[in-house]
Amino acid sequence: MSTTTVIKSDVANPALASEGKKKIEWAARNMPVLAQIKDRFAKEKPFTGFRIAACMHVTTETANLMLALKAGGADIALCASNPLSTQDDTAAALVYEYGISVFAKNAVDRDGYYKHLNSALDIKPQLVFDDGCDLVNVLHTSRTELIEGVMAGCEETTTGVIRLSQMAKDGALKFPMIAVNDTDTKHMFDNRYGTGQSTFDAIFRATNTLIAGKIVVVAGFGYCGKGVAERAKGLGAEVVVTEIDPTKALDALMQGFRVMPMTKAAAIGDLFITVTGNRDV
Amino acid sequence: MSTTTVIKSDVANPALASEGKKKIEWAARNMPVLAQIKDRFAKEKPFTGFRIAACMHVTTETANLMLALKAGGADIALCASNPLSTQDDTAAALVYEYGISVFAKNAVDRDGYYKHLNSALDIKPQLVFDDGCDLVNVLHTSRTELIEGVMAGCEETTTGVIRLSQMAKDGALKFPMIAVNDTDTKHMFDNRYGTGQSTFDAIFRATNTLIAGKIVVVAGFGYCGKGVAERAKGLGAEVVVTEIDPTKALDALMQGFRVMPMTKAAAIGDLFITVTGNRDV
Amino acid sequence: MSTTTVIKSDVANPALASEGKKKIEWAARNMPVLAQIKDRFAKEKPFTGFRIAACMHVTTETANLMLALKAGGADIALCASNPLSTQDDTAAALVYEYGISVFAKNAVDRDGYYKHLNSALDIKPQLVFDDGCDLVNVLHTSRTELIEGVMAGCEETTTGVIRLSQMAKDGALKFPMIAVNDTDTKHMFDNRYGTGQSTFDAIFRATNTLIAGKIVVVAGFGYCGKGVAERAKGLGAEVVVTEIDPTKALDALMQGFRVMPMTKAAAIGDLFITVTGNRDV
Amino acid sequence: MSTTTVIKSDVANPALASEGKKKIEWAARNMPVLAQIKDRFAKEKPFTGFRIAACMHVTTETANLMLALKAGGADIALCASNPLSTQDDTAAALVYEYGISVFAKNAVDRDGYYKHLNSALDIKPQLVFDDGCDLVNVLHTSRTELIEGVMAGCEETTTGVIRLSQMAKDGALKFPMIAVNDTDTKHMFDNRYGTGQSTFDAIFRATNTLIAGKIVVVAGFGYCGKGVAERAKGLGAEVVVTEIDPTKALDALMQGFRVMPMTKAAAIGDLFITVTGNRDV
Repeated sequence: MSTTTVIKSDVANPALASEGKKKIEWAARNMPVLAQIKDRFAKEKPFTGFRIAACMHVTTETANLMLALKAGGADIALCASNPLSTQDDTAAALVYEYGISVFAKNAVDRDGYYKHLNSALDIKPQLVFDDGCDLVNVLHTSRTELIEGVMAGCEETTTGVIRLSQMAKDGALKFPMIAVNDTDTKHMFDNRYGTGQSTFDAIFRATNTLIAGKIVVVAGFGYCGKGVAERAKGLGAEVVVTEIDPTKALDALMQGFRVMPMTKAAAIGDLFITVTGNRDV
Repeated sequence: MSTTTVIKSDVANPALASEGKKKIEWAARNMPVLAQIKDRFAKEKPFTGFRIAACMHVTTETANLMLALKAGGADIALCASNPLSTQDDTAAALVYEYGISVFAKNAVDRDGYYKHLNSALDIKPQLVFDDGCDLVNVLHTSRTELIEGVMAGCEETTTGVIRLSQMAKDGALKFPMIAVNDTDTKHMFDNRYGTGQSTFDAIFRATNTLIAGKIVVVAGFGYCGKGVAERAKGLGAEVVVTEIDPTKALDALMQGFRVMPMTKAAAIGDLFITVTGNRDV
Repeated sequence: MSTTTVIKSDVANPALASEGKKKIEWAARNMPVLAQIKDRFAKEKPFTGFRIAACMHVTTETANLMLALKAGGADIALCASNPLSTQDDTAAALVYEYGISVFAKNAVDRDGYYKHLNSALDIKPQLVFDDGCDLVNVLHTSRTELIEGVMAGCEETTTGVIRLSQMAKDGALKFPMIAVNDTDTKHMFDNRYGTGQSTFDAIFRATNTLIAGKIVVVAGFGYCGKGVAERAKGLGAEVVVTEIDPTKALDALMQGFRVMPMTKAAAIGDLFITVTGNRDV
Repeated sequence: MSTTTVIKSDVANPALASEGKKKIEWAARNMPVLAQIKDRFAKEKPFTGFRIAACMHVTTETANLMLALKAGGADIALCASNPLSTQDDTAAALVYEYGISVFAKNAVDRDGYYKHLNSALDIKPQLVFDDGCDLVNVLHTSRTELIEGVMAGCEETTTGVIRLSQMAKDGALKFPMIAVNDTDTKHMFDNRYGTGQSTFDAIFRATNTLIAGKIVVVAGFGYCGKGVAERAKGLGAEVVVTEIDPTKALDALMQGFRVMPMTKAAAIGDLFITVTGNRDV
């Protein structure tokens, strides 16, 4: 089943490829587990003859995942699940340094976004990787001719899993999808530890404010809320948690956090972080 | 300068000696630095020909200090600095297992206390170890005939150092005293880390109460207060600090503790711990 | 359905009743939720006409639970689920101060233990409270004549739930049992926060050792292990976790604990705490 | 003593003034103590008739200090103590929005740097504010004609205080200087809490790496080292401290940090942070 892969692409600036390559290599140094998987893929070639359409954040971490799949023998077409997170240098590097088809430009508009999804689907995928269910949705609406060829897929995020669950319940989902979102390690790294740190990374950059000695109000004590509350405490803040679920609220209290309704917290907080998924709390 | 030491003693119950020995040996296992010092003393014999009168808590830790001094060649007479902390088994073991003169009975009355101090001084000490300045005070009042023979001494605690400083200022102190109390490691182990843990040890035993989720009010943020506040936080409490020194209060705030006057803290606390040295705060 | 309750009992020392009453009242002050439930029970009398046989730790906390049930109208017979935890003063107070039938003596032998279980069952219970499944087991073996009268029960602990699940699977369980053990708040208070603190309470009393600066090895990172590891950290220890479940091990690592196999941890630990349920790790 | 102040300046881009003003106002919201001082200065006008030459980091925080001094009646000339930290928009705003003389351009070369210091000194200061002792040094070398007019000054940083102490010891310092550096609050905010957070702010931006689960090696356990170690722990790292002072090393150990020589730490660390002031540790 030997094939000659043709690399297609729509990226912002090919000249950024070498800069992007350096960043991808830097990220690789912090992804030791993926490195082991890549080594195994390179030996076992489990994806030989498989075409994958992936709709994901086009970042250095995704790039390394793509390289691992390619090492495993896959033909890949990557498009962006969110144009705002697309790193143009990473996209360029994937095309011009590593020979992977990429359709992604930072901040592209709605039409461009869907054009890119369709370009990725042109690979006629047997496997699809989705992050938000847009790729799967296009397959089930305007590109139904491709569904027969799709064996299975996986979905990364909560929103996507909710949409897929509804489709499955309605009998509308035409191929099996794995809910990557629901794994323990996803909750740990992405929600608890990842969001915990990245929230404060963003606050540091936006406000240039010292957290120590501040009263930080965290709305919600799920995985993300726990992560944010722990980091706030670790940075020297006095932490107030608001939470409508009584068991979670009790858990927050037992961990030494102050717990109160937002109506009270609003009066004393210096910094408010909502991790409920809602803007109005 | 060989001498035949005569062991004198007044302890509660010689039959407790073997039990006391086991406890002293257990404590020794957790005093590795003293063990090294003892080994050096055993080789160098720096105290040969020296008589030491020590007025200290008669506990397993003090016992090991006495054994190190004895290994260094000292003749020792030990009395209790606080009869309430005297461990009768430890006292018995020092006399009957290790051959050290001890004058200490748990809960002895005021007359017995001073009788013991005088018995210890009967050794005609060249060196004195004090913990609260009572031994030095007796020397300077009713046993002045011994002062000429005293070369120097050391004092363990804050109260004792305050009394000695006043005596020195008044020109009344007749020999040099080292303020052991003022060393960094004393502040660390005794005040910060020691008091931090032992306070909660006592609270566990007295109240049988879960600390997690409680509001613990700590009055004072000196070395002891820091230690207590850190342990309260480490046990899952929400910690409130009251402190009249503005710099220390600011430091507490920057470490994530709530800081407020006691008039406010009194209304919300579940548990109150005063580490100011005053009963009324 | 008015009944004249006859109080029966087998306790160690009736003279301890007034001391036990004081301790029960102290514990009540720290059980505000139960106080609310008791108030509601006193108004609604949901247990009027119900006989309850309870096999639990005979402690001040259990005593308050019994008082709440009695306030709700129940007739109660209490026996001990573990003779070693029986507080003789609490048992005496329940009988002589509060008029509840109790069959419990500290450190009673195996025969006495089963005699007490049978005495409690003599109440002919409609409801059973168990902690370890021994009471339910006696009902299903030597006291089968009572089964018909039992409506339901509840079980407190993991071991008991395991035994009950096996019975249910085999079709041998003759009435429904609620697995109290499996509630979120049980995991929180009993396993995570409760065991976390009480483990160190026990270590303080047994060893008189400072935890700060020690290397504490915690074997297992389930609810109990998390609680113990968090408290060890909060007391100033360097904490090493051993855990065979890779996801839990990863979670421990992400929380800043050192994670390694016990073969390595054994060489560096000062203090070892196994929370795996196994003696040999 | 009415004077007509002439505003002189050398800044990069006047067009940045309005942007700089917004940032200065944002910073002001987080400087409540300075706001109170400014209000008092505005009433009491303690600096009326005083000319101040200030050599400091030209940032939004410094800008607010300048505005407080100006509110107090001072004539000010500000130059940059480190051209790399100069914010060109802040500099422009001070000149064009607030009417303060500023001589500072980001990344100016050595000649430009000294030209700016001299321009600031042209104000013929009675008071000097220094950060690193360069301004005082210029006064004592090439601008000695101004010394007679200088009443006093203050110095911000460790390096500057070391240089001044040497000058004072040699009898070379011609006017009194206050060592702001040596105050408790400077150690707290600048060294411990400030450096603790800003170090990780920088690491987040430079490496995009998750700290949780990493081994962070902190070289030095002074004020800065403590701050960095605490934040590393608070972010979920396992923290290793290297420290040559035995008392500080012991303190680190008692706080639960691993302590070892750098020769060992080098083999296991993921991230190395030196807060010793030396590059080679």
